[in-house]
Amino acid sequence: MWRIEMLWRGRGGKSEMDRFKDIGEFDFIDRIAAHAQRNRVLCGIGDDCAVMAAGQARVRLVTVDAMVEGVHFVPQAPPEGVGYKLLAASLSDVAAMGGKPTDAVVAVSASGDCDVGYVERIYNGLFACADRFDVAVVGGDTTRTSGALVLSLTLTGEMARDQVCYRSGAQVGDAVYVSGTLGDAAGGLGLVLGDVDLPGEVRTALLQRHYRPEPRLDLGQVLAETGAVTAMIDVSDGVASDLSHVCRQSGVSAVIRAATIPMSLAFKKFCEVSGEEKLDLALTGGEDFELLFSVSHTQVDKVEALAEQYSICRIGEVVAGDGRVMIEDEDGKRVLLEQLGYDHFGS
Amino acid sequence: MWRIEMLWRGRGGKSEMDRFKDIGEFDFIDRIAAHAQRNRVLCGIGDDCAVMAAGQARVRLVTVDAMVEGVHFVPQAPPEGVGYKLLAASLSDVAAMGGKPTDAVVAVSASGDCDVGYVERIYNGLFACADRFDVAVVGGDTTRTSGALVLSLTLTGEMARDQVCYRSGAQVGDAVYVSGTLGDAAGGLGLVLGDVDLPGEVRTALLQRHYRPEPRLDLGQVLAETGAVTAMIDVSDGVASDLSHVCRQSGVSAVIRAATIPMSLAFKKFCEVSGEEKLDLALTGGEDFELLFSVSHTQVDKVEALAEQYSICRIGEVVAGDGRVMIEDEDGKRVLLEQLGYDHFGS
Repeated sequence: MWRIEMLWRGRGGKSEMDRFKDIGEFDFIDRIAAHAQRNRVLCGIGDDCAVMAAGQARVRLVTVDAMVEGVHFVPQAPPEGVGYKLLAASLSDVAAMGGKPTDAVVAVSASGDCDVGYVERIYNGLFACADRFDVAVVGGDTTRTSGALVLSLTLTGEMARDQVCYRSGAQVGDAVYVSGTLGDAAGGLGLVLGDVDLPGEVRTALLQRHYRPEPRLDLGQVLAETGAVTAMIDVSDGVASDLSHVCRQSGVSAVIRAATIPMSLAFKKFCEVSGEEKLDLALTGGEDFELLFSVSHTQVDKVEALAEQYSICRIGEVVAGDGRVMIEDEDGKRVLLEQLGYDHFGS
Repeated sequence: MWRIEMLWRGRGGKSEMDRFKDIGEFDFIDRIAAHAQRNRVLCGIGDDCAVMAAGQARVRLVTVDAMVEGVHFVPQAPPEGVGYKLLAASLSDVAAMGGKPTDAVVAVSASGDCDVGYVERIYNGLFACADRFDVAVVGGDTTRTSGALVLSLTLTGEMARDQVCYRSGAQVGDAVYVSGTLGDAAGGLGLVLGDVDLPGEVRTALLQRHYRPEPRLDLGQVLAETGAVTAMIDVSDGVASDLSHVCRQSGVSAVIRAATIPMSLAFKKFCEVSGEEKLDLALTGGEDFELLFSVSHTQVDKVEALAEQYSICRIGEVVAGDGRVMIEDEDGKRVLLEQLGYDHFGS
């Protein structure tokens, strides 16, 4: 979904960044936001999903994501993985509100030279994901393009109105948690693009995380039901960047402890062999599709009680501030993430 | 939305047609249809919108349409018109079910070289249409592409479950109606692409129909409320083609009377000057976005009563048959539309 950062940064790299800077002059974002302001719209631009009232007690969720060949996936990517991930990324957006997905529609723009078998394999991956999470793919549109293959998927969802987990509710003193392990998807991408020699099972584990990410739908719904979560987001750009979104939208800052960042053995092995700095990559590698959430300090017990069934890990806390994320080393020394060289994510 | 014909024919021309033929072997459409089969999905593939149960008495509607630069709009098109039409085409899909639109999301894939001001003007047109029809543009996604500009819009809607007008309910003896006038949008396209000399006001009228089509939302809702409509579709491919969809999905045929086809003075003038055969173009020119519907012969009074407020015209009737559309001349002579050279639309 549109995040303000996305409009400014683009998704694909630096070349777009400069162009999109220009549109600030036109108050483009303000105007988009204005068009989301209607009584029935509880949240338009700026969260994982848009949220619309549906009766007194329920809400509808909607999120759209596009993937472009050569930008979001490379030609050597297995097409089943491309399709699986297209839906999984949107499911993760619904998970980050605490919602339940319902239906999806897909628009495909393919060139005349595009191989039909290739597109069919993309759909096979999409359907595998849809079956697994009980999503109905209810329609779409197929168009011709002269350029790269473009896939766009719109997913709807629903949930109880009083359980929606927005990004903007984090408060000073809240504990910060993340699910699963971080960096594996970035490791998988590194394997696709690079030439790193790793044992077969390590390789498979990381590629699986890259191509078949696991949207945390069950956990998201369980967390929303606790009523203890004050803010939630999915890890799509990397914890460092995503936590800064939460902090800015909540008007707070956060401290995370380096020693608590959850990493898999496979990821550590990848960093060892490739020479990547593991804390850097775990915090800035995107597309983990884990849940990152803050919990009221009076209610951490409710969340800790879930730790046996779900993989969740307390990584820090919310402090007073103006939207910064700090990292604390084992000696208790805090540095702003920007000062560690992460100046590309904060915008 | 996906119509089975769309998958086979593509939308852009012959080059795609051959490629998409191949996928019949894979039962691609059957598989897509299977993925729309869940209890909550009342209608998946094959109508103007997908229809999902929302409680006991209501349904949700969803439709997606993509537009590609160079395929669905030419570079010389005014960008405001491109944006307006992107939403208007989807609104027309909701109108054809008898529904009320709610919210839209937009995915934009633009190249790094794409002019931001141009995209902004597209949005201005989109917002003008959204304001006019009280639709909230609640989000989107902006991505980079190496190719042509691709815009995809997903629109949701809602309505009473027992009022939904599907394509499949036409019965022998029903009267066939169409709203507005036919062919104007095709005339407008002819003006954009060609070099036809016409008076200013005629030119403006046709270009308006081409760039700012009028989705018949009010009429669609009023018709659905009558309970008299047995099948409805919007005129996107041309009456000849769209009526054949209704006939095939209803298991009937239809006769339309040449003399009753509604045409504007501007359209007649265009045909006179350009040399186009007006009946041909009125029946096969796409994107009129009028409503085409069948009415139970015992209830035509309910619909005739609307003729004072809305421009609607009775053009024929439903007869027994296997999905064919016939045209009857003033002498009562009937010919299959295919025999008049319309073999490109029937598929």
